[in-house]
Amino acid sequence: MTYCVAITMDAGLVFCSDSRTNAGVDQVSTYGKMYHYSVSGEREFVILSAGNLATTQAVISQVKRDIRDNAATSLKTVPDISEAASYLGEINRQEQDKHASGGGPNGGMSFEASFIIGGQIAGDKPRLAMVYPQGNHITTSKDTPYLQIGESKYGKPILDRILTRETSLENASRCALVSMDSTMRSNLTVGPPIELAVYSADSFSLQRFRFDDDDEYLRELKKAWDQYLTDAFDRLPSLNWGDSLQSDEPG
Amino acid sequence: MTYCVAITMDAGLVFCSDSRTNAGVDQVSTYGKMYHYSVSGEREFVILSAGNLATTQAVISQVKRDIRDNAATSLKTVPDISEAASYLGEINRQEQDKHASGGGPNGGMSFEASFIIGGQIAGDKPRLAMVYPQGNHITTSKDTPYLQIGESKYGKPILDRILTRETSLENASRCALVSMDSTMRSNLTVGPPIELAVYSADSFSLQRFRFDDDDEYLRELKKAWDQYLTDAFDRLPSLNWGDSLQSDEPG
Repeated sequence: MTYCVAITMDAGLVFCSDSRTNAGVDQVSTYGKMYHYSVSGEREFVILSAGNLATTQAVISQVKRDIRDNAATSLKTVPDISEAASYLGEINRQEQDKHASGGGPNGGMSFEASFIIGGQIAGDKPRLAMVYPQGNHITTSKDTPYLQIGESKYGKPILDRILTRETSLENASRCALVSMDSTMRSNLTVGPPIELAVYSADSFSLQRFRFDDDDEYLRELKKAWDQYLTDAFDRLPSLNWGDSLQSDEPG
Repeated sequence: MTYCVAITMDAGLVFCSDSRTNAGVDQVSTYGKMYHYSVSGEREFVILSAGNLATTQAVISQVKRDIRDNAATSLKTVPDISEAASYLGEINRQEQDKHASGGGPNGGMSFEASFIIGGQIAGDKPRLAMVYPQGNHITTSKDTPYLQIGESKYGKPILDRILTRETSLENASRCALVSMDSTMRSNLTVGPPIELAVYSADSFSLQRFRFDDDDEYLRELKKAWDQYLTDAFDRLPSLNWGDSLQSDEPG
């Protein structure tokens, strides 16, 4: 599996992805899942991918080919993030259909992949969209300022508690890393290195970070969070044991 | 869905369950998922259930009938928690088979249910087991002192961070409630009232609590936890923006 999360705030965008890929538990490999494309001062895109590795690689290859070959539709030409998501969704569908359609040994097999695409095109504000395996896409809302793909449940509660549109880039970055850390602790198929990309609104420049397993900052962050959570626990209001109900009748 | 968690420690056992049942989003109802049976000073059992409501109700009814009718095997007679889990697993299989076997309109439908059973039988220590829809069961280990059924992923990270065999009953109770709160926030199909049962080792008496949506303690706990998490966030080590990588080549 994979875990990717992207957050949109007034201040900009934050993207975070792990790098573990597995087919069963024997074939575990490391692949980055973050792709970046920019045209200086004009457009800035980040794509995160989850799902079948052959499909995600084929989709990203096609995205790159379309840019190189000046195709009619490419990340160079799309007018907004929503169109970019539609374009990505169409390639995604095509790549899956290549292998999944018809009968034969592939009949009924799934080559599904999901993507998050985000960034900014000059004249518009920063935006995010999530592309489903079916090719359609959704965006964020005021109340749900983040999108997730892959193994998303473990890391969701902390996002729900912390994030708003007013969250700073710094806090959203740390929130994404804590969400990633929670996921890695609870699920073996998500693992380092962790990639983080931070985009400040209207900057048209992306700050990228990479945290290996033994990265000092990541270790510090984990340790501090563990410590603070444990401390917080100790300070939680005590259960009033006198409030316990009468033991109900046996049987 | 449902969320139930049970924790085993040196100090005893903690059980926690929600009360929301749904079939789709229209049919949402409230049903307790915690069943308690005890023989004073001799045996103490708690059963938590998740899955198809007809199956879980039928299984619990059978468990009660076997006790009432002095059946050869019942919670009155099983020699240990592992045998109790086998007994429960067998009833679970039988109830599912009644409806799922054969062809007809039920062919291929799932009536699956899972259970956690725990407690203490005099002469043995407190134990927990989780019963799968297939009828087999697992228990806890030194490293994984808890079991979950239902919508388990959202509430798992906090359990992984906090719980050990040495955790106090009080802390485990609060940890279960926080785990439940995280799940309820992130998933609509898990909801109050929350039931909590605390069993102190060798006490052969169970303390039960019930928290409605507007319960004062639960509200305080949620508020404190939200506040402490937000504070903890603000104190996390800052990302060193100077550590960002060179922006990679476009394309």
